[in-house]
Amino acid sequence: MIQESFVLRGGIAFSDNKNNITTYYRGYLVCVDGICKGAFPALPEEYKGLKLYDYGERLIIPGMTDLHVHAPQYTFRGIGMDEELLEWLSTYTFPEEAKYSDMEYAHRAYNYFTEDLRRCFSTRAVVFGTLHNEATLELMNQLDQTGLITYVGKVNMDRNGGENLEEADAAASLQATREWLERCEGRYVNTKPILTPRFIPSCSDELMKGLGELSKEKGLRIQSHLSENLSEIAWVKELVPASSCYANAYELFDTMGTPECPTIMAHCVHSDEKEMEILKNHGAYIAHCADSNMNLTSGIAPIRKFLDAGINIGLATDVAAGSSMNMVKTMLITLQASKMYYRLVDQNVKPLTFEEVFYLATEGGGSYFGKVGTFKPGYDFDAVVVDDSKMCSMRDMSIRERIERMCYNDADAVIKDKFVKGRKVYTRTE
Amino acid sequence: MIQESFVLRGGIAFSDNKNNITTYYRGYLVCVDGICKGAFPALPEEYKGLKLYDYGERLIIPGMTDLHVHAPQYTFRGIGMDEELLEWLSTYTFPEEAKYSDMEYAHRAYNYFTEDLRRCFSTRAVVFGTLHNEATLELMNQLDQTGLITYVGKVNMDRNGGENLEEADAAASLQATREWLERCEGRYVNTKPILTPRFIPSCSDELMKGLGELSKEKGLRIQSHLSENLSEIAWVKELVPASSCYANAYELFDTMGTPECPTIMAHCVHSDEKEMEILKNHGAYIAHCADSNMNLTSGIAPIRKFLDAGINIGLATDVAAGSSMNMVKTMLITLQASKMYYRLVDQNVKPLTFEEVFYLATEGGGSYFGKVGTFKPGYDFDAVVVDDSKMCSMRDMSIRERIERMCYNDADAVIKDKFVKGRKVYTRTE
Repeated sequence: MIQESFVLRGGIAFSDNKNNITTYYRGYLVCVDGICKGAFPALPEEYKGLKLYDYGERLIIPGMTDLHVHAPQYTFRGIGMDEELLEWLSTYTFPEEAKYSDMEYAHRAYNYFTEDLRRCFSTRAVVFGTLHNEATLELMNQLDQTGLITYVGKVNMDRNGGENLEEADAAASLQATREWLERCEGRYVNTKPILTPRFIPSCSDELMKGLGELSKEKGLRIQSHLSENLSEIAWVKELVPASSCYANAYELFDTMGTPECPTIMAHCVHSDEKEMEILKNHGAYIAHCADSNMNLTSGIAPIRKFLDAGINIGLATDVAAGSSMNMVKTMLITLQASKMYYRLVDQNVKPLTFEEVFYLATEGGGSYFGKVGTFKPGYDFDAVVVDDSKMCSMRDMSIRERIERMCYNDADAVIKDKFVKGRKVYTRTE
Repeated sequence: MIQESFVLRGGIAFSDNKNNITTYYRGYLVCVDGICKGAFPALPEEYKGLKLYDYGERLIIPGMTDLHVHAPQYTFRGIGMDEELLEWLSTYTFPEEAKYSDMEYAHRAYNYFTEDLRRCFSTRAVVFGTLHNEATLELMNQLDQTGLITYVGKVNMDRNGGENLEEADAAASLQATREWLERCEGRYVNTKPILTPRFIPSCSDELMKGLGELSKEKGLRIQSHLSENLSEIAWVKELVPASSCYANAYELFDTMGTPECPTIMAHCVHSDEKEMEILKNHGAYIAHCADSNMNLTSGIAPIRKFLDAGINIGLATDVAAGSSMNMVKTMLITLQASKMYYRLVDQNVKPLTFEEVFYLATEGGGSYFGKVGTFKPGYDFDAVVVDDSKMCSMRDMSIRERIERMCYNDADAVIKDKFVKGRKVYTRTE
């Protein structure tokens, strides 16, 4: 694949670090062979020979990373939201996922998901499929062609899924996983497999142990769910009585990963100091799903505490418990959630700032993919061009004000172009 | 004004009461002279002579009421949201509102507000202007022409606004109010004046008393703010030491209204049993502003308690502390807020259901305007036609599921037509 080299001009914003957003009004952003060479208030001499695309008053921000999203749930997003987790899974989610044994269904449904992911703020995503190998390969095919960079997991579940969404036993699940991995080999450019035990209630001890071993054997990363809902946590304690906490249950099965091969744990709403220590020691990533956690009445994860402890964190939509793949709406709900945690739970835990949430949506989650999520030199060139001209204003707003306003008014921020590693993967045609 | 009589056909949804939404797939909705004659699964014989507009698969829902919105704040929505109330007012709001002494500015800025209000889910609104008579009359002119039905208030504030946003004293503020009221007389069809003491920190005792008297003298309704923020509440206690609580301070000045002439109090985030009793006794309306209350870290109002106590409640965007005039987004945030109140504050206070929130957004607030906000016979014919076909799905969703999904995915719900009292006030052209 030949990467283009070029310069974009526009209203540029990116995180220097989690407490500062650098902005340039009508600044320059340089891409050479898919790699960002930096953002500049004036174009350095050495890049003046490159083709320049002038976006005028539009905003240019780093692509965002959706660290946890369920592809097969996309087409029923936004319904059943008066339920809590376990009832919602059995009433809506499991019956829907069971339909992905039908490849015609999977093809059509995943096309909806894939096309909408291509059009949203995310340039990277870590995705749950279903337990079906064929459907998951179809999802990976489709995602690979978008040019977005993704991890995708065939889900493992050998218990508590109901008769239509359960693998026969641990051995069958592990065998299917090996077959799936073989079929992935050499097939994709932008999509990688990730081991995906759904969560402990869905996976027998033997299956969890097998997946831990497979991860080590093949150097494969793992994604799962942790401490989302109080009933779920109590259930895990029953299922793994030897565990000192939910995170420790994953540890016992050797599925918590290492800093070099980090596991993603979605939610961590109810994680205490002990779980934080486990997450930190393993270099795990927390996928913070504020929208989902409000919708299913799970609670609010204490992200300020996790940040201060130096735990890796990214933001995630968690469709369909989150109702939209719009990461900018997720930023808004993340801010509101952290403000309510401060106000209602613990006034020693300050709300997240806009700077911090912008960082989490971009470099926070992006770092799971390497040097991704900001416009510092050496980072992958992932960028989103946004037209916010529909949002009328009577004042000259700074770039910083405009990206905050975009986050609070997601419906009026129109994505014009999206780049991943320097390749344009989407351009708005209407 | 001649009202049309006609029939609409489509996917109809409306509240029977706060616990039930009646829906008709491809049902009929009858309007005669601006009044709803009911919704029907099959068109009654007597209405078969009326012109029928078939909206096919589109949704038809009651128009919504935004019970509290600040027109002059619209053009700076979505910025400064890391602040709390009092800092946000002095840093962003008061300097902006001071600009409305300039009529050229007011004309342009209010045009943005008015046009966007015309295009959103609201058919009714209760609106704050600024303290300026000329600008407020301009706002009323513009709103009147939209065909939306509104109350608009010239704001009273004779202290703590800073030198550019303060009336000289109580007498000057009252005199200006009388002049404004005179100039409103006979001038508008759809817009009425409402007395608008900003909140107690902005109004001297003398001004508050004068407004209470003016309300009685002229039979005018009042709108204000109550118990939004902890620092504000402490300040009110200092300012009116004789009051037993914030609501009682309004009572002392005779501004809490009566069931026949109800006062709207925005927020009531921190209202306790004593304040609830005062609100109930006076027949006051609570304008619940969940988005605003999260954005400014104010907290979450216990709406379930207010509902159970039989207090009048509607929903409100509270732009610009709320960042959007989209009432459907407000519904989502209202649901999330009530779920968090249950989870984090008091598990005896159950979350609001989708049915309840739909009721609050339509008839709950609509009842402030009379028989408004549902499709029962005898109600004003306020309706919004929504195209949700952009929201892909793999299943045949019920009308009930589709309106829930619309609420959780506001950006993909496109308003096609909007009717107020049987008059079409908006139609989407693009």
